[in-house]
Amino acid sequence: METGVEEAETGRPLPIARIIAPRSVAVVGASDDVGKFGGRVIHYLLKHGFPGRILPINPNRATIRGLPAFPRASAAPEPPDVAILAVPASALEAQVADCAAAGVGACIVITGKLAEAGPAGAALQERVLAIARGARMRLVGPNCLGIFNPVDRAMLSSSLALEEDDYRPGGIGMVSQSGALMGTLLSFGHHHGARFSRCVSVGNQADLALEDFLDFLVTDDATRAIALYIEGLRDPRRFRALLGGARAAGKLVFIVKAGRSEAGAAAARSHTASLAGAFAAFEAVCRAEGAVVMQDPQAMVLAADAALRLPPWPAAGLGLAPIASSGGSTVTFADMLPGHGLRLARMADATRAVLARWMPESHIHLPVDTGSFHEGTSGDGLAECIRAFMADPDVGAVAVPMTTQPDMAGRAALLPPLARAGGKPLFYVMSAGKVGDASRVAMRAADFPFFDRVSDALAVMRALDEAAAGRAVPPAPERPAGMAPAPALPGGALTEGEAKRLVASCGIATTRETAVQSAEEAVAAAEAIGYPVVLKGVSRAVVHKSDAGLVRLDLRDDAALRAAFAEVSSRLGPDAEGCVVQEMARGEAELFLGAIHDPQFGPMVLVGAGGILVEVLQDVCMAPAPVSAEQARAMIEGLRVAPVLAGLRGRPADTGAAADTLSRLSWLAAELGPRLVELDINPLILRAAGQGAIAVDARATLAKEETP
Amino acid sequence: METGVEEAETGRPLPIARIIAPRSVAVVGASDDVGKFGGRVIHYLLKHGFPGRILPINPNRATIRGLPAFPRASAAPEPPDVAILAVPASALEAQVADCAAAGVGACIVITGKLAEAGPAGAALQERVLAIARGARMRLVGPNCLGIFNPVDRAMLSSSLALEEDDYRPGGIGMVSQSGALMGTLLSFGHHHGARFSRCVSVGNQADLALEDFLDFLVTDDATRAIALYIEGLRDPRRFRALLGGARAAGKLVFIVKAGRSEAGAAAARSHTASLAGAFAAFEAVCRAEGAVVMQDPQAMVLAADAALRLPPWPAAGLGLAPIASSGGSTVTFADMLPGHGLRLARMADATRAVLARWMPESHIHLPVDTGSFHEGTSGDGLAECIRAFMADPDVGAVAVPMTTQPDMAGRAALLPPLARAGGKPLFYVMSAGKVGDASRVAMRAADFPFFDRVSDALAVMRALDEAAAGRAVPPAPERPAGMAPAPALPGGALTEGEAKRLVASCGIATTRETAVQSAEEAVAAAEAIGYPVVLKGVSRAVVHKSDAGLVRLDLRDDAALRAAFAEVSSRLGPDAEGCVVQEMARGEAELFLGAIHDPQFGPMVLVGAGGILVEVLQDVCMAPAPVSAEQARAMIEGLRVAPVLAGLRGRPADTGAAADTLSRLSWLAAELGPRLVELDINPLILRAAGQGAIAVDARATLAKEETP
Repeated sequence: METGVEEAETGRPLPIARIIAPRSVAVVGASDDVGKFGGRVIHYLLKHGFPGRILPINPNRATIRGLPAFPRASAAPEPPDVAILAVPASALEAQVADCAAAGVGACIVITGKLAEAGPAGAALQERVLAIARGARMRLVGPNCLGIFNPVDRAMLSSSLALEEDDYRPGGIGMVSQSGALMGTLLSFGHHHGARFSRCVSVGNQADLALEDFLDFLVTDDATRAIALYIEGLRDPRRFRALLGGARAAGKLVFIVKAGRSEAGAAAARSHTASLAGAFAAFEAVCRAEGAVVMQDPQAMVLAADAALRLPPWPAAGLGLAPIASSGGSTVTFADMLPGHGLRLARMADATRAVLARWMPESHIHLPVDTGSFHEGTSGDGLAECIRAFMADPDVGAVAVPMTTQPDMAGRAALLPPLARAGGKPLFYVMSAGKVGDASRVAMRAADFPFFDRVSDALAVMRALDEAAAGRAVPPAPERPAGMAPAPALPGGALTEGEAKRLVASCGIATTRETAVQSAEEAVAAAEAIGYPVVLKGVSRAVVHKSDAGLVRLDLRDDAALRAAFAEVSSRLGPDAEGCVVQEMARGEAELFLGAIHDPQFGPMVLVGAGGILVEVLQDVCMAPAPVSAEQARAMIEGLRVAPVLAGLRGRPADTGAAADTLSRLSWLAAELGPRLVELDINPLILRAAGQGAIAVDARATLAKEETP
Repeated sequence: METGVEEAETGRPLPIARIIAPRSVAVVGASDDVGKFGGRVIHYLLKHGFPGRILPINPNRATIRGLPAFPRASAAPEPPDVAILAVPASALEAQVADCAAAGVGACIVITGKLAEAGPAGAALQERVLAIARGARMRLVGPNCLGIFNPVDRAMLSSSLALEEDDYRPGGIGMVSQSGALMGTLLSFGHHHGARFSRCVSVGNQADLALEDFLDFLVTDDATRAIALYIEGLRDPRRFRALLGGARAAGKLVFIVKAGRSEAGAAAARSHTASLAGAFAAFEAVCRAEGAVVMQDPQAMVLAADAALRLPPWPAAGLGLAPIASSGGSTVTFADMLPGHGLRLARMADATRAVLARWMPESHIHLPVDTGSFHEGTSGDGLAECIRAFMADPDVGAVAVPMTTQPDMAGRAALLPPLARAGGKPLFYVMSAGKVGDASRVAMRAADFPFFDRVSDALAVMRALDEAAAGRAVPPAPERPAGMAPAPALPGGALTEGEAKRLVASCGIATTRETAVQSAEEAVAAAEAIGYPVVLKGVSRAVVHKSDAGLVRLDLRDDAALRAAFAEVSSRLGPDAEGCVVQEMARGEAELFLGAIHDPQFGPMVLVGAGGILVEVLQDVCMAPAPVSAEQARAMIEGLRVAPVLAGLRGRPADTGAAADTLSRLSWLAAELGPRLVELDINPLILRAAGQGAIAVDARATLAKEETP
């Protein structure tokens, strides 16, 4: 890695700040023909006003686009900071070697058919990388689309997105593992007036990776919000630390990651490791660091833009105030809120009083149809109502879903000053086609975001609400009292008894139980514990005891227990370890708790609806371990079953005890580290509020060999 | 209502076909100033080439826009078919009276501040309606934005949407209770190349209502798909019949209805009547008639357009085949499918064989990244792969999420012929901004739909898949054997025993039970039924017996039963009717079944996940009663808990018996008619497959007075 000393002494390796804003650029394979990659690269450098020196490299031409051309990079009059290579794969190695010889600081390799294409390409990529490393020359790519840097007018790319005019500099930094997608998003954002700082397509990441450019963006003054398209991480823990750095720097991060649907499929499977699929862990870590994971790349760009150009979303969980001159557009807007996890605001009395000046009492409700104003839709009335909503404490943002009407552009122009004065976001949606263009022009002129789709606005609102929830750095969790060292246990799948000893060691309540080898021992144990009891057959080979007929619940007397013992014993195989008699726990509700060691992000805990429905409903929340009891409580309260726990019908369950249990489990996972493969408590029975929670069953698998 | 005889004899009332395509139009309040409503109306008639006679009405002008003007409609040289009135409310009554005197066939009243504005407006509206009725003159509106009829170039509206040029005629008919929203959607659709037949803004529906225009569209030759924005229905049963007529005519209907979010809130409440909120009943009826209820008006228009201009979606439940030259765009597209209830296709071997000609074996999977083609992205390879997907039986549609790249427009132009030859839909998504415009132009030139958003394409795919599911008319359900007449029962809330007798009368199995007044009677009853038993206290006043401590489950012997009897008896109030001893039913799973009489649509049944979670998860399906056992089974299989019922872990439950029970309940609801207020079976216990299902608890309320 680069160090300050090396840079100061030698300028090598070239720092990212210089790669992104080079003083000179050699274009290898330069051409006058914009139909060719190299022709487009030089065309776009010129079109977008690159202020540094452009060095066309082409052995057959004396000038290209009026600039002196050179046969090789090494023939250039000075060592170029950056060389852009869009040559056939067959020519790549020689050209990179020439760049290395020329003292090029970094090669941006657009050339594809390298590692992504198979073993031969991978070998070529390795050779190219070795040449670069040998010369302490950096590589961006290969198989990338280069760098867009409107701040420095350095558009180092062949992407057709550069056909757009006038990419003005802005605050959105982007790193993408897909160049084509990034180019599309730049053009899409540009249509909306979004403005970018530095955007990098990282391609195959032979040398510089997404994490390196994210590191740069986190400290880059020009970048104030970050959008990432990720396929896979090279260094997950560095990535997590960088997200933390972005939050500390006050920069919101919006992410789309490939692989969500695989995770969905995995979550439907039946054991903890599947529930904890890689995507879920990724999402949990991002959430823990305040980054927002989204599904739709287009919405991601709009969210990053809205985060910068709208006033900040005040706080998570506030309501929306839709207001426009059409009942149809405001009502359908309001109807779409719950599907995006959003809600209407509750109007304050002061707001009602303002609305009462403009409209009949019977029409004062959200959403507001300004068509019901006494004098018809009025700009003054609209402005006054919006001012009232901006001051209303339950209003997080105002939405104006505009329809075709006279003077749409004039009406639109009223809105940016109202949002800026009010200090809350205002979502202006212009759903119409060409007749809405004058409004869009007005909004671009006011440097204010607009939305072409209600669905876009809703996705962005949702993202900004989530971002608000993650803006503050939570206090570091403290280790709970009463955590004993984990007992010595074998590797592999543990018995229920072993797993319970493990969870009990960190202060989690477990059902009382006694191992028994005969009906007589069982009866004695039951009398000590107190009827009713549960009898379970113990076998290390059986994962789902209930399915194997090894669990008999609610045994109320000696006779029932003896009969159950006979039956369960008959089902146990030769590998079995006998039976246990357990306390029969009852409560108000049950939860599923789990812990895993994610190969990328380390220890994670999860909590979900208990019972068989966890697998159907995927009502699960995951977080990186450890978590505090407060964080654990928030995880539980975010579940869909939360209303049941809170006593939707019947008595409230002890969610406090469940949160304490989850926190303890998270510390156990954190302390076991890679030794823990997976552990789950299913169910944790929650008694009535104040009466605790108890682990009724537990399963765990430890790594066979503990790493020394 | 109009009849053929009257029309033939007198031409009155004017049929809708003539209102929509009038031979002459009087514009009351005509002006040269397009800043005024009346100025815009006449401007748009001229701009869009109205072929009939235009009669400007203005007492102060001899000519308007070069046309002879008349002081009043009654001064026109002929009785106009239609008069368009955009005059102040204060002038409306006199102008309508003059139109009536002039023999105008129908007034389109754009004027607002009528019934929607309060009592004074409502009274004015009534007077205007009375004048119209007296003259057998039809009214459209008031408070509407009129009629768009590109088929006949009759644009009878002041909507700014008519600023768009070149509304070419097409097959989408629309009726909307919001004029502003409709205008916006016309412009939005026009941007995408969608083409409309007749679109009507119905406003306050003083006379002609949404149902009347829907009736027209169902039989209108020019209309081949229908989009509806509905706030409330005037005649729900006629509406339902019209949806059936549209299906019979092969016309898909796409609907957005206001009020979805209220229904969501209502569904969270705790009793059947809430679960069966008005929106849910509306949606159920639409589904039963093959109409598709959507959330987003913009997506609705795109769906109607796609239904007409794309080849038909082959069948419900098929997979998608995304293919494009960007891994990023195809993977994110695929990741978004499950969130929209869609899935990737399973590729046939024949398809794999075709792909193997173009790409390395390791890259052959869905989604397809044509960037991995041996020769780089190739139009020939793209075309050949798309042809293979079109022939693949599991592929319902191909999706091409295009990114910025050279020759985007040329690549786009390849696609329409491939879709037409393949006979399956192809979704071309162009996410980029202005650099994508050439592709959009190419698609418009090919008269082929395009999508600006991945999210739009997904919403439309979802809608077309639902439409395919509802395309066929299901066979009429047959009354199950073994349904006895309903027993004579009092009005009001029934006891559990009465409710069970009611459900038992239609052949539904219920738990055996005996009413008891003493512990001795209870013990005797239990011995007859067989232990374990359940003891319940019976009180007409108690709705939630469990919450009131009136239910004791799993009593296994005389002692337990006597203790329970003492305790339950002590909790019963003076109004109570004693206790019952019931068989203790056990099974594999449980469901919630309900029936209501919806005030708009009549008898409905619903089924959902059993137990307390029904209220949290809203995992409920409703349908208009009666339903066949086949339909009932499909309802159950569509629930999220369906995998649990099918034996996700443990034995499969008897869903066949549950479907039979649901069908029987639906017939009971249909036969009770308005006498039934609500009835639910909660839970219905499903035994293992082949062993039946049994109603363990039932509640019902009957209307106090039966309508004679």
